Amino acid sequence: MAKKHVIIIGGVAGGASCAARLRRLDEECVITILERGPHVSFANCGLPYYVGDVITAQDHLLLATPATFRDRFGIEVKIHHEATAVDTSQRLVRGRHTVSGEEFSMTYDALVLSPGAAPIRPPLPGIDLPGIFQVRTIPDAEHIRTWIAERYATSAIVVGGGFIGVEMAENLLHRGLKVTLVEMLPQIMPNLDPEMAWYLQQRMEEKGCRFALGSAVAGFEESEEGLFHVTTKDGSRYAGDLVILGLGVRPEISLAKQAGLTIGSAGGIEVDEHMRTSDPDIWAVGDAVQVTNIVTRQPQLLALAGPANRQGRVAADNIAGRSSTFRGVQGTSVIGVFGLSAGGTGCSESLLQRLGWTDYEVVFLHPMNHVGYYPGAKQMHMKIIFRTTDGKLLGAQAVGEEGVARRLDVLATFIQMGASVHNLAEAELCYAPQFGAAKDAVNFAGMIASNVLDGDMPVVDWNHLPENALLLDVRSPEECAGETVADAVNIPLPQLRQDTSMLPQDRPIVVFCHVGQRGYYAVRLLRQRGYEAYNISGGLLSRQSATSTAKNK
Amino acid sequence: MAKKHVIIIGGVAGGASCAARLRRLDEECVITILERGPHVSFANCGLPYYVGDVITAQDHLLLATPATFRDRFGIEVKIHHEATAVDTSQRLVRGRHTVSGEEFSMTYDALVLSPGAAPIRPPLPGIDLPGIFQVRTIPDAEHIRTWIAERYATSAIVVGGGFIGVEMAENLLHRGLKVTLVEMLPQIMPNLDPEMAWYLQQRMEEKGCRFALGSAVAGFEESEEGLFHVTTKDGSRYAGDLVILGLGVRPEISLAKQAGLTIGSAGGIEVDEHMRTSDPDIWAVGDAVQVTNIVTRQPQLLALAGPANRQGRVAADNIAGRSSTFRGVQGTSVIGVFGLSAGGTGCSESLLQRLGWTDYEVVFLHPMNHVGYYPGAKQMHMKIIFRTTDGKLLGAQAVGEEGVARRLDVLATFIQMGASVHNLAEAELCYAPQFGAAKDAVNFAGMIASNVLDGDMPVVDWNHLPENALLLDVRSPEECAGETVADAVNIPLPQLRQDTSMLPQDRPIVVFCHVGQRGYYAVRLLRQRGYEAYNISGGLLSRQSATSTAKNK
Repeated sequence: MAKKHVIIIGGVAGGASCAARLRRLDEECVITILERGPHVSFANCGLPYYVGDVITAQDHLLLATPATFRDRFGIEVKIHHEATAVDTSQRLVRGRHTVSGEEFSMTYDALVLSPGAAPIRPPLPGIDLPGIFQVRTIPDAEHIRTWIAERYATSAIVVGGGFIGVEMAENLLHRGLKVTLVEMLPQIMPNLDPEMAWYLQQRMEEKGCRFALGSAVAGFEESEEGLFHVTTKDGSRYAGDLVILGLGVRPEISLAKQAGLTIGSAGGIEVDEHMRTSDPDIWAVGDAVQVTNIVTRQPQLLALAGPANRQGRVAADNIAGRSSTFRGVQGTSVIGVFGLSAGGTGCSESLLQRLGWTDYEVVFLHPMNHVGYYPGAKQMHMKIIFRTTDGKLLGAQAVGEEGVARRLDVLATFIQMGASVHNLAEAELCYAPQFGAAKDAVNFAGMIASNVLDGDMPVVDWNHLPENALLLDVRSPEECAGETVADAVNIPLPQLRQDTSMLPQDRPIVVFCHVGQRGYYAVRLLRQRGYEAYNISGGLLSRQSATSTAKNK
Repeated sequence: MAKKHVIIIGGVAGGASCAARLRRLDEECVITILERGPHVSFANCGLPYYVGDVITAQDHLLLATPATFRDRFGIEVKIHHEATAVDTSQRLVRGRHTVSGEEFSMTYDALVLSPGAAPIRPPLPGIDLPGIFQVRTIPDAEHIRTWIAERYATSAIVVGGGFIGVEMAENLLHRGLKVTLVEMLPQIMPNLDPEMAWYLQQRMEEKGCRFALGSAVAGFEESEEGLFHVTTKDGSRYAGDLVILGLGVRPEISLAKQAGLTIGSAGGIEVDEHMRTSDPDIWAVGDAVQVTNIVTRQPQLLALAGPANRQGRVAADNIAGRSSTFRGVQGTSVIGVFGLSAGGTGCSESLLQRLGWTDYEVVFLHPMNHVGYYPGAKQMHMKIIFRTTDGKLLGAQAVGEEGVARRLDVLATFIQMGASVHNLAEAELCYAPQFGAAKDAVNFAGMIASNVLDGDMPVVDWNHLPENALLLDVRSPEECAGETVADAVNIPLPQLRQDTSMLPQDRPIVVFCHVGQRGYYAVRLLRQRGYEAYNISGGLLSRQSATSTAKNK
């Protein structure tokens, strides 16, 4: 009997994981990886840092070579092999060698598609000019490095404010180039809500990055002096020695379409929970498939390496006869820019608004990464989104210099396990003065959200103050001398505790302090005395990010 | 009608949290905190760092003053007020002023005991000599600082290798003193398993700390030159300019006993899930109560600030008529020493062994805190304990320079939510090159444990190799040139993949590599070819910690 032959198309993340897992489950089958490019299993997430000289050698990005796969796993990797067609009736893959042009065909018993996603390149005038680069492969990164070196480039335009755009902007600034980031939306990092992305933008501006937000690109031109101009629909022009495109990615579905596989409503290859496509002999994994969001239960695209790896593992299990399933995604992600980390897990408020959800509540907080009495404490900014009816955690975002990924990971774990905000309040996390606090940031998030959920502390935000409200600042007079809010009445908390009779009973009272804690105390005091009191979640420290991004909306 | 009067005895952590929460729920009741010492709500966890001059000013340790409680919360704090008796039939607390000696008595409607735990001071000869210090209060820390300064102290003996002992040793070394740590057990940090605590001890030895492990103290003597000698039962003597006692703590139950409250089997005040004692008008919180371990379901003592705070909150809820409950503890803790972090959550293996549990399995791993291709990756050492029958996560420990608290927090969250190791494998955590990996350390832990759970990779450890086993080293010849294992046969993985016929079919084959990954591949290969193969969990990198601590057992 002939040995089972498994072909895997695409050798990065999902494909590589699938191949290695499959070998561990089945020593006998023949596994072939077809990789269009010159490298298998390279670190695409490291490319911006290679351009930025943070990662200094190309070979650091090569996680495995065809020899590794052969020696360790008995897996054959064919680089420069591009699959061009799948004949599902004959279970045949056809393709050509990308260098020699030679055609090939191979039969399979099981086929795994892991083609990834391709950078979006809108058909704009001039987009194919030299000097306009995408960042997907090691050769892409090499071309950028060479261009910068040979042209002594001193300025760059980055088009797109997502992960690649922001990371490229940071790395080019790091190399001493002047950078302008052009983005169609009024904010960078659209996976984050605007008031959270704002902190990242501020940090980048401090480091010299210029922004043209709300600017849709119209085209590209090369001037006689060799400068490249990005023109936008509002008529502006931005010039630089090179242009980086970071306009997001689109799943590579051409082969799947050609094979007659079902493409889902979100635009990716449709798979079941076993990562099997509409063809029973074909599996698909990674950025090219659409996945279910575990919070919204909606299909979506998500180009992240972690889920791709787990999908590869699930596909391998099923090909080997084990019935494992992929649980879906929650979109946990983080980015680090100039010492600031920002990220999220679960749903953003923007996403919930797009989906028309209204059964949710939001709280903001600004906890320290560890106790303030130990030297070096850093402030974080956090946003927690939970379901109003049952307190289920729907999403969380955080930004700060230290401890951000740690709290996001805890919150991601809570979302995975279907936790409510009460669970967050009850978390028992690591505490020593250098590492946290007896009430960790996650505990605070849970307690604040629980207070809202339980009706103890109704909250409002700076952009949605109740009509006819009295704005009550409960900070100390010394604090008020620093930053004031127009129309706010200042009654410090200790004074308020003595006497509240000067406050009107017939108007909503909106309380704020520096971060929201004394505001909470005041709201409890006032509510028990019969006032209709609200706390501004996140206090004065949330004001600038909230109001400056509201203008952008 | 008279206002409800709540008395809280003890103003640190649990007591302070209880008072503040109670005020937020009930504006009307009268709340009085009786605090024996001169400070309310101080940062006892910061004391070693104040001694070490890392925290430079005493007032950094004062989290709140009586004025804070009065102004913010309308709570009266009576410092220097020691409660000496409770008359439960009359609901009366009696006591005396610790400075004036004046007696007082106060009636209560609800009483909260938050007396904490006292350092253990065994009645050994010489224990009351000057120069022998405990570390519980700010005055304790001041006395040590003064003693060091006035005597120009250059050496210290620390007795006890738990949190306080290790933190004090670090801080005294940091100040330039020579330090010897004397500990009765064969290891430091008994909340960790010996092979995990070993890494911490190594680091401390590198920094000059001397250890006398397995040495029970017999007594203390002062020499004519003013040196203090610690004598041990094995006849050794250790001399220093001062002695720090870090022998653990014992719950302060004298008042509870006097009041006739039930004391539990673990030696703490017994409370129900609402933190109510056997007297319906008395609640108790913090280090003085015994709590239920959520993993073992056994009662235990646990002196940690986080749970104390949450207990205070629960007691306040119930006093205010809300029926909230305390979910129990899992013992999450961390310590930082000379740049190394170590901690655990859930059960240690030592604890499970003491309880006689056998339905568990252990895996070791040594993942990096982030991808190796990004500069600055640091190795962690992790131990995962899970139930063999259903894969439920029972405990986790980790040690390393970076990322340890983060992974422990995630694992603590999984334990809280009752997760299995499969959930760990499926976690979707923060990944960017600076922050993690597409397969995070937690994912690896879950995948390795799942492989064991599913029977794909039976594991053994260095101290329990099967009889008559063939020890098979699958590393490369270059690696073997560095460190070899006696009696091990070296067949590198690529060669093994070519041919396994030289291996005996009638003996267990125990495979190892550097960290366990290639060992896993080899085990899968061999098992599918009919061999009885086992992987040594954690590989060669686990060997030294395992074998050197086994000798101590």
